[in-house]
Amino acid sequence: MTLLDSVHNPDDLKRLPEAQLPQLAAEIREFLVSQVARTGGHLGPNLGVVELTIALHRVFDSPRDPILFDTGHQAYVHKILTGRQDFSGLRQEGGLSGYPSRAESEHDFIENSHASTALSYADGLARAHELRGITDRTVVALVGDGALTGGMAWEALNNIAEGKNRRVVIVVNDNGRSYSPTIGGLAEHFANLRMTRGYEQMLATAKNAINRAPVVGPPLYDALHAFKKGLKDAIQPQIMFEDLGLKYVGPIDGHDVAAVERALRRARDFGAPVIVHVLTQKGKGYAPAENHDEDQFHAPGAFDVATGRQRSNPGLKWTSVFSDEMVRIGAEREDVVAITAAMLHPTGLAAFAEAYPDRVFDVGIAEQHAATCAAGLAMGGLHPVVAVYATFLNRCFDQVLMDVALHRQPVTFALDRAGITGDDGASHNGMWDLSILQVVPNLAIAVPRDAVRLRELLREAVAVDDGPTVVRYPKGAVPPAIPAVGRLGGMDVLRRPATDTPDLLLVAVGPMAQTCCEAADRLADQGIGVTVVDPRWVKPLDPALVAEAARHRVVAVVEDNGRVGAVGDAVARTLRDADLDLPVRTFGVEQRFLEHAKRDRILAKMGLDAQGLARQLTEIVAKHSELSLEDEPAS
Amino acid sequence: MTLLDSVHNPDDLKRLPEAQLPQLAAEIREFLVSQVARTGGHLGPNLGVVELTIALHRVFDSPRDPILFDTGHQAYVHKILTGRQDFSGLRQEGGLSGYPSRAESEHDFIENSHASTALSYADGLARAHELRGITDRTVVALVGDGALTGGMAWEALNNIAEGKNRRVVIVVNDNGRSYSPTIGGLAEHFANLRMTRGYEQMLATAKNAINRAPVVGPPLYDALHAFKKGLKDAIQPQIMFEDLGLKYVGPIDGHDVAAVERALRRARDFGAPVIVHVLTQKGKGYAPAENHDEDQFHAPGAFDVATGRQRSNPGLKWTSVFSDEMVRIGAEREDVVAITAAMLHPTGLAAFAEAYPDRVFDVGIAEQHAATCAAGLAMGGLHPVVAVYATFLNRCFDQVLMDVALHRQPVTFALDRAGITGDDGASHNGMWDLSILQVVPNLAIAVPRDAVRLRELLREAVAVDDGPTVVRYPKGAVPPAIPAVGRLGGMDVLRRPATDTPDLLLVAVGPMAQTCCEAADRLADQGIGVTVVDPRWVKPLDPALVAEAARHRVVAVVEDNGRVGAVGDAVARTLRDADLDLPVRTFGVEQRFLEHAKRDRILAKMGLDAQGLARQLTEIVAKHSELSLEDEPAS
Repeated sequence: MTLLDSVHNPDDLKRLPEAQLPQLAAEIREFLVSQVARTGGHLGPNLGVVELTIALHRVFDSPRDPILFDTGHQAYVHKILTGRQDFSGLRQEGGLSGYPSRAESEHDFIENSHASTALSYADGLARAHELRGITDRTVVALVGDGALTGGMAWEALNNIAEGKNRRVVIVVNDNGRSYSPTIGGLAEHFANLRMTRGYEQMLATAKNAINRAPVVGPPLYDALHAFKKGLKDAIQPQIMFEDLGLKYVGPIDGHDVAAVERALRRARDFGAPVIVHVLTQKGKGYAPAENHDEDQFHAPGAFDVATGRQRSNPGLKWTSVFSDEMVRIGAEREDVVAITAAMLHPTGLAAFAEAYPDRVFDVGIAEQHAATCAAGLAMGGLHPVVAVYATFLNRCFDQVLMDVALHRQPVTFALDRAGITGDDGASHNGMWDLSILQVVPNLAIAVPRDAVRLRELLREAVAVDDGPTVVRYPKGAVPPAIPAVGRLGGMDVLRRPATDTPDLLLVAVGPMAQTCCEAADRLADQGIGVTVVDPRWVKPLDPALVAEAARHRVVAVVEDNGRVGAVGDAVARTLRDADLDLPVRTFGVEQRFLEHAKRDRILAKMGLDAQGLARQLTEIVAKHSELSLEDEPAS
Repeated sequence: MTLLDSVHNPDDLKRLPEAQLPQLAAEIREFLVSQVARTGGHLGPNLGVVELTIALHRVFDSPRDPILFDTGHQAYVHKILTGRQDFSGLRQEGGLSGYPSRAESEHDFIENSHASTALSYADGLARAHELRGITDRTVVALVGDGALTGGMAWEALNNIAEGKNRRVVIVVNDNGRSYSPTIGGLAEHFANLRMTRGYEQMLATAKNAINRAPVVGPPLYDALHAFKKGLKDAIQPQIMFEDLGLKYVGPIDGHDVAAVERALRRARDFGAPVIVHVLTQKGKGYAPAENHDEDQFHAPGAFDVATGRQRSNPGLKWTSVFSDEMVRIGAEREDVVAITAAMLHPTGLAAFAEAYPDRVFDVGIAEQHAATCAAGLAMGGLHPVVAVYATFLNRCFDQVLMDVALHRQPVTFALDRAGITGDDGASHNGMWDLSILQVVPNLAIAVPRDAVRLRELLREAVAVDDGPTVVRYPKGAVPPAIPAVGRLGGMDVLRRPATDTPDLLLVAVGPMAQTCCEAADRLADQGIGVTVVDPRWVKPLDPALVAEAARHRVVAVVEDNGRVGAVGDAVARTLRDADLDLPVRTFGVEQRFLEHAKRDRILAKMGLDAQGLARQLTEIVAKHSELSLEDEPAS
């Protein structure tokens, strides 16, 4: 029996003697590597926080002391230590979520995987405790160094710093590669001194004694020095967060569990907001993860444990097509520049950066700044392409609306991971953009159905010079090309009715084209006349759509976005506004927060596969056409 | 002839001898007071930046050097100095905008009145200049001290600090009341020293000489001291922004035009990012504006110059009703707390704060933090009410969606200034919330039609304990109460058809109820059978709506939100999903950025007054009913 087998909850963990903790940590690492090798998942971040998480659960009393995981992809160890050791179904339907999940455990608080939010939750929880007279609970927030570049984190620090009587411990998990986890006795000594009320009083007394004469010395100089290097580099071993009005302990070697425990205990007992600065190594303990430059083990797919080789999914990725076309466009257009919010590799901009290093800007995890900085670049005569995951665009909606669109600036937003992403659960699905962007005046949206169209539409987008454009495409492999059989205005016709009866106009939005064509072929086999069009640009809709719709009995729209307020509603409104009162049916993602599962499986369960769609469309056509019920196929 | 009469552009201004500038400043102040007294407008902020704006236009070469006004309500002096001295139609249809306007002048760049964006634009413009090899232009951003509490400003500073070769001058207009505009020769001397390349080199040499020994002294101590007081208070006279990696000049007396000019010239000539810290007094030079505690002269309506007494608009305000009901609810429910993003008075929370000082939280201009902090408060057992202008909710859409709604936290958002606000132009209209919030699962939206319903729905909202709620209401005076004549599920029936023919179901969203009832009465006079319902809760829609719609020939929805993706589309989708293929027509605000004008005038031009609505509804009913064309009234 392993040590891990004996740990079912934090109480079991607290009972372990300190000497056994390194063995427990080793067992957890082995467990993580072997499990994630089978299912894929966030490996590197979790290998880095093994000792830190052990220490957190030994020092604090979860869930009475809420432990908040910012971003949440580093909560695997937390799950293991809170009774969740069945990782066989990790990120799969019915299995463990890849993030904290309130449904899974009372130890989990934040399900949102978007960065920089935990400190704001912590501020709220701590204010609630204070107001309700709860003085024996500490709120703990674990936040990465990268998340501190997000403005929301600064807004939160600004507020937390005010609450001198609130028990908040902010653990900064600093795994930036530029810092080696060196830590000496001196820093610990200073930290120890600093974290006692006695030291505070001593300092106050000394200050009075010297009548407000400056109390300075090497630590203060170091702090200033760190600040002078800019916020981006501010999380230095020598930095003192006290400059923000917050007490500071650190830096601590995050792989020395005893050292981390001591620091956390001091922070807990201080009774006011404290930052504990912990240095960790991403991928710690698994050589292939430690040695990768491009962070491929941040969230690998299934891989071979011995070699670290990932079992790659076959097929060309949407991201790769974007990546490649950006390099080509860059060669032709010197004014095209690119912006990323700390995701150069995942968004496919690395190739562009290599080809044109001066023309790519990484602004940190700062989507708001990314959008408005792009507006500024455009005012300065350039055409910026902001590459961002679709779900993260929500973070700069106001900037897209006001700073870019109101000012009619030619900025192109490339939204990767649009539609259902699946595995990562509710907060990673890109199912919102096609709805909220509908309201933005002056903005145009393109949705490619295949690689050919992605290249083509990206070029059309960067050619627009009087307002913002959006090109959105899904995660994963590009489907085979679907050639157009005709053109209607700016729309591609993908299927024409074989019969003389144009019963149904099927509007296939981008990646749903394949499914729509398959469904249409099934309907055609039953003698139903179906026209399938891909609008290519879904906003504004092509004027040809109304005339074409008028030739049909029923109109249906299919998209892989939440169905509320998206292209389906836009088509219906456009027909209404043209006094064309045809029956319209809209198919899209159910408007709720989705459990994690495979993309295809989620779509099929919602009737968005070819079979489900064919069945529903047949019913509708039957209801609204001359087809007799006898002709209807069994569903 | 006054001096002001001779200044038609920045070149004229540059030709004036320095000795005449105080007189010019005095003339501008007199002009501002007399003009704004007639039309209303942003007075206090502009009185504070008279000398600063004069200096900006004497030192920089606008528009080659772009001058970016953050928030934009302090750009009146800039308008005066760039050839726009006809203020007679300020903020009125066809007259000057109350903000910079690209249509008005090549000297204007940012039209968005939302705070904290200018630094991001500046970063983009400066990057564009650098990339294009433009070295003789400086980007100037004028930002208030309050705007620095917004996270976006920190994201931008973090990026600007990186660009050591980019010519950016950030002018912090520090008008916080807690700082007196004291400024001595020492600070100027230091600033002078600091802003020369020679000093830089000297410092570097000295550093090498003493082999990295700490170079510290009183200024460094002061900087640390300021930081220790927390970001919120960080803009102290002694602070050194250099700690953020940015050069700093200041603090400067913002009403000493020669001193400001000298500082700006030094900053301009430095050739790298510099912050110029200017202390100004809001309302400077007009006693009633200088002496007001609650900042009533930030943006007064028309007022009497001699007394400062504002010509108050008659009638009870929506904000006052909210304010009053919050105090009542607070007395009954200890768990109800309130949050504001730096707008305690404008949102009506001041009364609540006075009654329950521990239960209101001002988080700074930080809407993102406001929303997520509220989620934390809710997790801590409280029921927060976040009071915010509707247009600013866009700034925390992701937080509402992910941090509040995904977690089903009971947070109530009170959206003031929803719908058309008019005078302040495109970026103040609250015409987006009813659309983008439609996509948020677990969230319910109430739209009151009068004061009775605001009180009632606010109470219903804070009674919801398993998810977020929104109550949205317009700017200005509450209309007379419109009693219900019946109830259908949760909906109020406002009009029933007098005849036996229920032709039209008219869904009146909140404040449009009055207009809808008047229009319905006109239709009834023509023998058209109209039912008017107010859904009260527009999301989710009441199930009774479908059955009621089925009794009618046509359904129409009227709302004062952008018509894309809002309640109209939701009603249409709900009927389609129920296989009820009735003609539906949706009336709302045109989906474009609107020029400033009076609310009523804007609505009327869009056919959203009783007359316009009656005309359009009559036509639709005529088309879809038994009414013959002969019965149709002349429009």
